[in-house]
Amino acid sequence: MGISAEQTLGGNAGATGGPEGTGRTGIWLIGARGSVATTAAAGLAAISGGLAPATGCVTVQEPFGSVRLPAFADLVVGGHDISDVSMAKRAELLVEAGMLPLHLMESVRTQLDEADARVRPGYDPAAASGSQADAARRMARDIADFKDANGLERVVVIDVASTEAPVEPLPEFTDAALLLEALEDPARAVLPPSSLGAYAAVLAGSPYVCFTPSAALGVPALGELAAGHGVPTAGQDGKTGQTWLRSVIAPAFAARGLRVLSWAGANLLGGGDGATLSDPEAVAGKLQSKNRGLQELTGGAATPLHIDNVQDLGETKVAWDHINVEGFLGSRLSLQTTWTAFDSMLAAPMVLDLARLMALAQAAGETGHIGALGFFFKDPWGSDEHSFAEQTRVLAEWAQSASSRLPADAGSGARR
Amino acid sequence: MGISAEQTLGGNAGATGGPEGTGRTGIWLIGARGSVATTAAAGLAAISGGLAPATGCVTVQEPFGSVRLPAFADLVVGGHDISDVSMAKRAELLVEAGMLPLHLMESVRTQLDEADARVRPGYDPAAASGSQADAARRMARDIADFKDANGLERVVVIDVASTEAPVEPLPEFTDAALLLEALEDPARAVLPPSSLGAYAAVLAGSPYVCFTPSAALGVPALGELAAGHGVPTAGQDGKTGQTWLRSVIAPAFAARGLRVLSWAGANLLGGGDGATLSDPEAVAGKLQSKNRGLQELTGGAATPLHIDNVQDLGETKVAWDHINVEGFLGSRLSLQTTWTAFDSMLAAPMVLDLARLMALAQAAGETGHIGALGFFFKDPWGSDEHSFAEQTRVLAEWAQSASSRLPADAGSGARR
Amino acid sequence: MGISAEQTLGGNAGATGGPEGTGRTGIWLIGARGSVATTAAAGLAAISGGLAPATGCVTVQEPFGSVRLPAFADLVVGGHDISDVSMAKRAELLVEAGMLPLHLMESVRTQLDEADARVRPGYDPAAASGSQADAARRMARDIADFKDANGLERVVVIDVASTEAPVEPLPEFTDAALLLEALEDPARAVLPPSSLGAYAAVLAGSPYVCFTPSAALGVPALGELAAGHGVPTAGQDGKTGQTWLRSVIAPAFAARGLRVLSWAGANLLGGGDGATLSDPEAVAGKLQSKNRGLQELTGGAATPLHIDNVQDLGETKVAWDHINVEGFLGSRLSLQTTWTAFDSMLAAPMVLDLARLMALAQAAGETGHIGALGFFFKDPWGSDEHSFAEQTRVLAEWAQSASSRLPADAGSGARR
Amino acid sequence: MGISAEQTLGGNAGATGGPEGTGRTGIWLIGARGSVATTAAAGLAAISGGLAPATGCVTVQEPFGSVRLPAFADLVVGGHDISDVSMAKRAELLVEAGMLPLHLMESVRTQLDEADARVRPGYDPAAASGSQADAARRMARDIADFKDANGLERVVVIDVASTEAPVEPLPEFTDAALLLEALEDPARAVLPPSSLGAYAAVLAGSPYVCFTPSAALGVPALGELAAGHGVPTAGQDGKTGQTWLRSVIAPAFAARGLRVLSWAGANLLGGGDGATLSDPEAVAGKLQSKNRGLQELTGGAATPLHIDNVQDLGETKVAWDHINVEGFLGSRLSLQTTWTAFDSMLAAPMVLDLARLMALAQAAGETGHIGALGFFFKDPWGSDEHSFAEQTRVLAEWAQSASSRLPADAGSGARR
Ligand SMILES: NC(=O)c1ccc[n+]([C@@H]2O[C@H](COP(=O)([O-])OP(=O)(O)OC[C@H]3O[C@@H](n4cnc5c(N)ncnc54)[C@H](O)[C@@H]3O)[C@@H](O)[C@H]2O)c1
Ligand SMILES: NC(=O)c1ccc[n+]([C@@H]2O[C@H](COP(=O)([O-])OP(=O)(O)OC[C@H]3O[C@@H](n4cnc5c(N)ncnc54)[C@H](O)[C@@H]3O)[C@@H](O)[C@H]2O)c1
Ligand SMILES: NC(=O)c1ccc[n+]([C@@H]2O[C@H](COP(=O)([O-])OP(=O)(O)OC[C@H]3O[C@@H](n4cnc5c(N)ncnc54)[C@H](O)[C@@H]3O)[C@@H](O)[C@H]2O)c1
Ligand SMILES: NC(=O)c1ccc[n+]([C@@H]2O[C@H](COP(=O)([O-])OP(=O)(O)OC[C@H]3O[C@@H](n4cnc5c(N)ncnc54)[C@H](O)[C@@H]3O)[C@@H](O)[C@H]2O)c1
Ligand code: NA
Ligand code: NA
Repeated sequence: MGISAEQTLGGNAGATGGPEGTGRTGIWLIGARGSVATTAAAGLAAISGGLAPATGCVTVQEPFGSVRLPAFADLVVGGHDISDVSMAKRAELLVEAGMLPLHLMESVRTQLDEADARVRPGYDPAAASGSQADAARRMARDIADFKDANGLERVVVIDVASTEAPVEPLPEFTDAALLLEALEDPARAVLPPSSLGAYAAVLAGSPYVCFTPSAALGVPALGELAAGHGVPTAGQDGKTGQTWLRSVIAPAFAARGLRVLSWAGANLLGGGDGATLSDPEAVAGKLQSKNRGLQELTGGAATPLHIDNVQDLGETKVAWDHINVEGFLGSRLSLQTTWTAFDSMLAAPMVLDLARLMALAQAAGETGHIGALGFFFKDPWGSDEHSFAEQTRVLAEWAQSASSRLPADAGSGARR
Repeated sequence: MGISAEQTLGGNAGATGGPEGTGRTGIWLIGARGSVATTAAAGLAAISGGLAPATGCVTVQEPFGSVRLPAFADLVVGGHDISDVSMAKRAELLVEAGMLPLHLMESVRTQLDEADARVRPGYDPAAASGSQADAARRMARDIADFKDANGLERVVVIDVASTEAPVEPLPEFTDAALLLEALEDPARAVLPPSSLGAYAAVLAGSPYVCFTPSAALGVPALGELAAGHGVPTAGQDGKTGQTWLRSVIAPAFAARGLRVLSWAGANLLGGGDGATLSDPEAVAGKLQSKNRGLQELTGGAATPLHIDNVQDLGETKVAWDHINVEGFLGSRLSLQTTWTAFDSMLAAPMVLDLARLMALAQAAGETGHIGALGFFFKDPWGSDEHSFAEQTRVLAEWAQSASSRLPADAGSGARR
Repeated sequence: MGISAEQTLGGNAGATGGPEGTGRTGIWLIGARGSVATTAAAGLAAISGGLAPATGCVTVQEPFGSVRLPAFADLVVGGHDISDVSMAKRAELLVEAGMLPLHLMESVRTQLDEADARVRPGYDPAAASGSQADAARRMARDIADFKDANGLERVVVIDVASTEAPVEPLPEFTDAALLLEALEDPARAVLPPSSLGAYAAVLAGSPYVCFTPSAALGVPALGELAAGHGVPTAGQDGKTGQTWLRSVIAPAFAARGLRVLSWAGANLLGGGDGATLSDPEAVAGKLQSKNRGLQELTGGAATPLHIDNVQDLGETKVAWDHINVEGFLGSRLSLQTTWTAFDSMLAAPMVLDLARLMALAQAAGETGHIGALGFFFKDPWGSDEHSFAEQTRVLAEWAQSASSRLPADAGSGARR
Repeated sequence: MGISAEQTLGGNAGATGGPEGTGRTGIWLIGARGSVATTAAAGLAAISGGLAPATGCVTVQEPFGSVRLPAFADLVVGGHDISDVSMAKRAELLVEAGMLPLHLMESVRTQLDEADARVRPGYDPAAASGSQADAARRMARDIADFKDANGLERVVVIDVASTEAPVEPLPEFTDAALLLEALEDPARAVLPPSSLGAYAAVLAGSPYVCFTPSAALGVPALGELAAGHGVPTAGQDGKTGQTWLRSVIAPAFAARGLRVLSWAGANLLGGGDGATLSDPEAVAGKLQSKNRGLQELTGGAATPLHIDNVQDLGETKVAWDHINVEGFLGSRLSLQTTWTAFDSMLAAPMVLDLARLMALAQAAGETGHIGALGFFFKDPWGSDEHSFAEQTRVLAEWAQSASSRLPADAGSGARR
């Protein structure tokens, strides 16, 4: 890439506020044409191009200044999707919804078109033929091709596809041999798409992140297989809004010795995610994943929760919580919170952070669930910690320690 | 105190969840007949008597289990006030206001009457005659008499009196010699009551806590004098509700890389505190103290804030916050919180915690501002840390370390 | 009842703010030992005894001053229930829940015991034997006995029993002859309890009010039978809180030319009603009844709505609404409302109002559904008007007109 | 204007939903380059051009269908302002603030430029020279010139300029002769700009509307003078958001017999209005005007209210209300409302409605304060009615009655 690339890089090191990174890194987004993915891609282009600061990315601020991470300008986007609506078209819809600024979208249209050209067909359960193993191998090849074509040191796969309905348990789910057999059987389709995507990622040797509440590596036999491939993995279900706030507030009540009796919640959302979650089966998985942490943090308070598809809200998510608390001498206090945000605007910077941190994880030789990334997830893999303050501390320590373990020339390869 | 006392104590060690404490300890409440004080006294009696758990007291839960603190049953209440309305009468009003449970108040009426019998006239600026130094010495004597009469190892003085108007600076405030001179002059009254009360405490060798936003030790020359007496001090302004919540949420936004643009707040409250704060001068001090931490935590967001006296709310405090935040690509998100609570029910357990922890501080030989108690305060003395999660960590570490420095037999003296 | 009764009456005319009423009137509460019923009975005793003003009763204020209604002191409470917990015991629980003031409950305990002594066993579908027709006749006799024993001019029957699950349609529901046949068949139990109670009321010649969302007279064949008995009827489902507020706000948006796009709601409630509505079947009826009016008022906005049983809220109901509105040039505005109230405190005065107004209706010779009482109901029988302001106007006009049609000596009969 | 104009008109009668109107009508906006004015002008162009429905205009819906009003396409915008920022530039800022849709602004840029070309310099107290009477005559001439140049039947003047500080009373304010004398004195400037603008309007024989809380015709001697000119007048202070909601909800509580104890409010707003109201003097007038109606509707509840300038909110207004209510047996209920809206989007359609209705008023021969327009105002001139439902009824009746009094050929003159 020569000298001018080096200069670009230098410029971007500034953008990240950090030292030399870990090399050119691919972000392979499963669900690449969705709202979160498109926002992440548009944002990445804007940040790399110096059009916008990386607000909402934790890796650009202290204490990550000395952590070695790939520069934003070293991140390249590709992915799988089953939709024909291009990223640029999707971005236009996000502009119409009042979420993306028009001028910004126009400034990054070229980069969106480039990214969209790197999108390959995902696994569509409704249209699939052949064995699932073949499908996984094909998708792993897509990832490898992406890596080669773009001169990437590594590719981080991040699932931001539509939430799936929870799966019914099968014998294959707890027996790796059975599962492998079933995967080769063209007449069967035992794994949900999210799990197949995760499998493809590990086959490709890629760090894998599950940003959705879908099954993914939660299928035990698949988790076992994945572990064998020695890639770092992280999940699950991005903790962006209401659940994040809960993980901030609930530990604080506990620290005060105040006892949460009930924590009731309502979620209103439109957009693609709203439409998906209007399916009672799809929503079941999401509700579970949202509530698990709260249950732990409150020691079993009543936590009724609803998600409603309210299409006129567009890309906005509104969440109301009512918290009933027992205080001194049996007295009651209540807290209500109302959260209003563009959901994907919260998710996208976390996707970029995760790409950078998973690149670090792999460069530092980590494998399996990285519990220290629980900061980002509603239902963290590899950790039981749900308190956001504690997760913040743990993340910083992990990143610094992982960074210190990097070989001195990490990341330089791609740039020579 | 013999065997039966030991047994009682043993029983109470259970109540505190902790090991042997630091000895019989007095709580001298300036403003003893107010809402916070009365609630603390009633609650202490209820907890000691096994009628109520110590919900809202942090010192009864982990990681304070191994910290050596005075048992609840070893705490004795006295104080100063300038009101003639007895604690029992005040408790009745709190029952009528729907705050204190009737049956509980009835169960602890005897203890309230006993505590009220230990209340001595406070310093009333409207009625005072003689020099302020004499007044301070008289009040110090009140404290010493209380200690002797009740066989106390030490007395922790806690100011929970009405909020004062901010003071106008005087030359005496920055020159200790001038101040001492003025204090002896019967024709002058340079110190506000809160400062005089603090002075009396340090004269009596008592740990001193300022739970209000009043001047107290904030008068520099007085702070200097106080430092010379080698007592531990802590303040200022109990962080019970809205401000506490702000110190929980603001650091979490920062940890996410989200930028708070404005944080507007409204407070509605009735009761004695509401009436006091309806005075524009008194409210000024409170507003300052409430906003300082938020300013630091947000790096200078706009933080308009109002406190309204709404007498029909009785002892209830309602606080609304509207937080406008900048996220990814300049997008906006908003959070609203509404907090509804009986204010004194939040303050009272903190008063009991502070009494126990300040007894520990003195027993462990600490002097001057104990910044590690910032957990309890809107505007912590001796610390710039405003993040509640961080304050929680710091408090726990401090308590464990202080406890480990206690002489092996600490607190046993009073019980023999 | 002689001269002293007349005097009592005179005294109570003052309490009602109105002229001479329509005679001694019974209130027969189906669900007499429930929260709403007990609160109504306790409140009636307090108001009659001059212990409390009739706040929340619309019939005591203008423009009802000149409307002839029974005085509060002329109202006598009895009823059906299937619970063994007495009204006084229930009232104690309401005191514990912080809803009823203790002193008030103690002052009216005698009247509660007297009312409770007039409660007869309701129709319990789980325990019933014999034909439903026999059960209805037995319950009608209970009402007649109550009337005779207490020298009542008339008895208004008001259903405030637990909400039932919606019924599955049967051929009998649309064919009165079939229905009558089935009712006499001891082997069948075609009508839900609410309908049987309504049937008993009309058999007894009593005005009937359905304050619940249960089937009641909504079974068409029963409605037909009821019409034949010439009694006034009114329903359905008391419009006390969130739904009331919606019927206030929705018409106002319409009057401004603003277009409601969605109106999402969450309800949290504890108590007996909360427990009942935690049954997904029971809640279905309630949700329907709550949403019907809103649908009409908004012309078909999206109106997702949930009711959650949150037992730690006790008798308190919390309701949150989020309203998304289209304004000028496609702009959006949103309104959120949070309602916090003791549900039964809202319902009880309406029960008393309804008793008084239905006595007037019958005295004025009205029969069938009184649509003008839509003011009180979520899902008004005999009217399509859902706007509260319009209902307010209609109610006042109806009451004045009905009152003017009363014979000159109405209500005097019972007193001679 | 010939046949094609007639056809255009016919087309626009469709847009208004009404019959033939009252002739080509000017809207002269004092503060023509402000946010409200620009939004009204842009919206008028969009509606006339068929680009947007007239959502938020009450005069396009029933029962105004048969009321004879000028068609939107017959409304022509001009005005006074003291700012140099053109309407198109202002509209661009409103697009950037996320309020006006970009494509719409672009579609109506020509019309905005045309309107802006009709803007004349307003009365700037900081820059004025000469007598105020001369200034008023000059401004009246501006209006007359506008009328002539555009072939208008009449010109409705509407004050949407920045809120002024309340004025200090002067002897001239209560003595018309004194006032006239002072107005002619070049050395004095007794009237605030709003009053001078109102005076110019009446001198020009124009119907005058005061959409702000400024003094305007509230100066008694000026009111007297105005009355002498026989023009219809209406005011004051557009009731668009929080105050409107209060006038919806407060009467409903009263209709239920529930007693509002306190109604506390907080307002957060940015934009030009926010900046103006950050001046404590300017805000005083606004607060008064906002609270007067609520005081009447609640019979004197406590109504603390604040307005905060929060510039990061841009054109958005956020208003929080907390209502504490006494119900049955002294129980308490609370309602909270949070209103979030683009303030000018609420005001603009009301400005268009007012222009049409004031044209009707003058055509129907009405003079003086039109109390029936109280529907639109926080502090209605000529009426004590604050209940929105009642105002809605009154407005409809008035419009129908006024329309029926129109000469048969009203409005046709301008078109020949
Ligand atoms: N704040 C947030 O936005 C947030 C937070 C946590 C989790 N999530 C999760 O992120 C996911 C994406 O959310 P979104 O708002 O972008 O949704 P979206 O509906 O806009 O996008 C989902 C995309 O996934 C694609 N897709 C569906 N099935 C696929 C398959 N089998 N293979 C490949 N692509 C497939 C769809 O075509 C679509 O383009 C959801 O699962 C959501 O629950 C989002
Ligand atoms: N959550 C909380 O309740 C909370 C939180 C932080 C701070 N505070 C502070 O605690 C203080 C007490 O609050 P409260 O609600 O109990 O108020 P209160 O009005 O009920 O009680 C104050 C008491 O102080 C007494 N007093 C006044 N001047 C005195 C003097 N010079 N000497 C001795 N006594 C004096 C009064 O007579 C009264 O009994 C206030 O300053 C308040 O700002 C309370
Ligand atoms: N604001 C309000 O409280 C409100 C508003 C509208 C409607 N309602 C309706 O009023 C009803 C009563 O509410 P509540 O809070 O008093 O409930 P509750 O559970 O406290 O009382 C219901 C009573 O009905 C009795 N009951 C049940 N089945 C019966 C039967 N077959 N015959 C006779 N009695 C029977 C129960 O034993 C109980 O005593 C509910 O249906 C509720 O939906 C209440
Ligand atoms: N919902 C609402 O927006 C609403 C509701 C009620 C009342 N109002 C009132 O409407 C007015 C306008 O609000 P806005 O948001 O458009 O404010 P703005 O600040 O955007 O516009 C005010 C305009 O008035 C102009 N102006 C100032 N002094 C003038 C003078 N002496 N002569 C002529 N023009 C002058 C300014 O230059 C500016 O262009 C304010 O008084 C506001 O209180 C607005
Ligand atoms: Na976990
Ligand atoms: Na109906």
